[in-house]
Amino acid sequence: MKTDWLKAPVRIINPDWRVSARQKQQQLTKPEGSLGRLEDIAVKVSALHGCARPGLEKIHIVIFAADHGVAQEGVSAFPASVTLGMIRNFANGGAAISVMAQELGADLEVVNLGTLEAQEDLLGVIQEIIAPGTANFRHQPAMSEVQLYAALDVGRQAAIRARGANVDLFIGGDMGIGNSTSATAIACALLQQPASELAGPGTGVSGEQLQHKVQVIQQALDFHQANLDGPLTILQHLGGFEIAALTGAYLSCAQQGLPILVDGFITSVAALLAMRLNAEVKRWMFFSHTSAEPGHRQVLQAMKARPLLDLGMRLGEASGAATAVPVMRMACACHNRMASFASAGVAEKSV
Amino acid sequence: MKTDWLKAPVRIINPDWRVSARQKQQQLTKPEGSLGRLEDIAVKVSALHGCARPGLEKIHIVIFAADHGVAQEGVSAFPASVTLGMIRNFANGGAAISVMAQELGADLEVVNLGTLEAQEDLLGVIQEIIAPGTANFRHQPAMSEVQLYAALDVGRQAAIRARGANVDLFIGGDMGIGNSTSATAIACALLQQPASELAGPGTGVSGEQLQHKVQVIQQALDFHQANLDGPLTILQHLGGFEIAALTGAYLSCAQQGLPILVDGFITSVAALLAMRLNAEVKRWMFFSHTSAEPGHRQVLQAMKARPLLDLGMRLGEASGAATAVPVMRMACACHNRMASFASAGVAEKSV
Repeated sequence: MKTDWLKAPVRIINPDWRVSARQKQQQLTKPEGSLGRLEDIAVKVSALHGCARPGLEKIHIVIFAADHGVAQEGVSAFPASVTLGMIRNFANGGAAISVMAQELGADLEVVNLGTLEAQEDLLGVIQEIIAPGTANFRHQPAMSEVQLYAALDVGRQAAIRARGANVDLFIGGDMGIGNSTSATAIACALLQQPASELAGPGTGVSGEQLQHKVQVIQQALDFHQANLDGPLTILQHLGGFEIAALTGAYLSCAQQGLPILVDGFITSVAALLAMRLNAEVKRWMFFSHTSAEPGHRQVLQAMKARPLLDLGMRLGEASGAATAVPVMRMACACHNRMASFASAGVAEKSV
Repeated sequence: MKTDWLKAPVRIINPDWRVSARQKQQQLTKPEGSLGRLEDIAVKVSALHGCARPGLEKIHIVIFAADHGVAQEGVSAFPASVTLGMIRNFANGGAAISVMAQELGADLEVVNLGTLEAQEDLLGVIQEIIAPGTANFRHQPAMSEVQLYAALDVGRQAAIRARGANVDLFIGGDMGIGNSTSATAIACALLQQPASELAGPGTGVSGEQLQHKVQVIQQALDFHQANLDGPLTILQHLGGFEIAALTGAYLSCAQQGLPILVDGFITSVAALLAMRLNAEVKRWMFFSHTSAEPGHRQVLQAMKARPLLDLGMRLGEASGAATAVPVMRMACACHNRMASFASAGVAEKSV
């Protein structure tokens, strides 16, 4: 499998668009800076799109789903069968992200990278099965090198489809029972933190079960220690297929010049992996929300990322990102359609 | 003028709707609580509307505009003529809130309570002129008692129009050069804080001009001290017509059972005034955003209000509230249209 693409540079952003968008903001009928972060969003979208009238009409949401061997350790509040159950729920329009995508008029694509039980054909679900879930990383690498590159490539293919559909924004989401355990382990390895520092409730474990989750993660970190020497080996040993796919998707989006909106904890860990492979990926990213999962703040800090929303959400499946989209659209609408001081005949700042 | 309505009780909320909405949230296909504050919003809208399928389709935005005598003191970065200029801009669709209202499909009504220069007839602007701006409260009461009650009643009439149009949510906004000086003075009187503690840049003053603004506010507080013994006298001596109208509108909305979405600093001061007149008004309120105006945090704290957004906005004219509306709509959409564990055949929490 060809892996050279991982090292390809990200698309260069022409700085002129940023400058002219910022100038335009200063002419709109409002005190300078008074739309706060809405101004920054409009300017960044303008720069990334290379366009004086930035828009976010076409949104492409991809949920990457996969099962996790480590779920056998009883680290989640839900049984592993829920991964497949939720894939069906996505397809049937009953999940939070199904409803949200409809609200936004966004495309919703689900990619199954491997569930414990085989999945029947479902409309809107692409099967890119790598294995029926990862191996249990408490005792062995989560995946082989071949599986790692295959999963990264599944993400890349999704980004290529999105680019081909000429969308304005790419949103990746995650589904996989056990994946907060995997994401936490990856974050610990990347940030060189103990499990106790970053582990949290995920879907809702607490008390003894949370202590057990911390233990499982710490044991895995200790067990694989000698092999955790870079983002790819960390991802291979501790990852999930969906986290690898998200990482590949983010890299590919940035390479192709497609703006990315990062969701919550799991996707932020994938974003951090992508940034460790190429720091420039961040230029193509927006960050949607701060999750209630406690480790998320440290992952965001490591990326120097300041998300738009902080609503105590912790669902994953791109739900936080979808909630932030209308705020970004509002920013673009004001940028494009507000009057200038000159055109409205309103007096400018007097001092 | 009849003022008995100020003391009328707020509409009683049937607690059953809250309970059943919360139960429904627990059955939806997501870990309990994982949609964070979106769950609380949906539950509260359901309770306030007395409806199992809460919706926020019809939004009514009213911008109350008026000039301020205290603007003569050079406390704003913009000349007073901007108040009337912006009223025209609202009517012509060029202001931030004009664009945002269009994005939301919301009604936008502008009410002019009195500008320095007379306003020509403008479509979408209701003239309820009390005087060509308030008196300069550095040296005299901002308004007479008669003017105060007239301004409160202008707000009440707007709320009655909104209720009559059967809208789902009332949003009040403010426009008035000098009104952050007035709102700060009111907040200082209500919270018994010195001007230096709460004053901020408003439209963008800094350095010596900000120090001057602090001085003007403090002098006014000292000058009127003997008369600042309750929310109504504080409003009369230090207020603006638009702040009084907002206060009246909030009271009337709560009395009529119409949910309110509070905007930023100026409107929060009006909300605090309304709550000092009747603490129960808060039951009918949502809080949209934390403004960049530094005094806002203390006003919010005094109301024990936790807004949804914190985007560094400080424009007023209901722009923060409008930005929060899609988040609230997303909350309702999920509540109404997500599948339950039973209907989707997804396994529930295993522990």
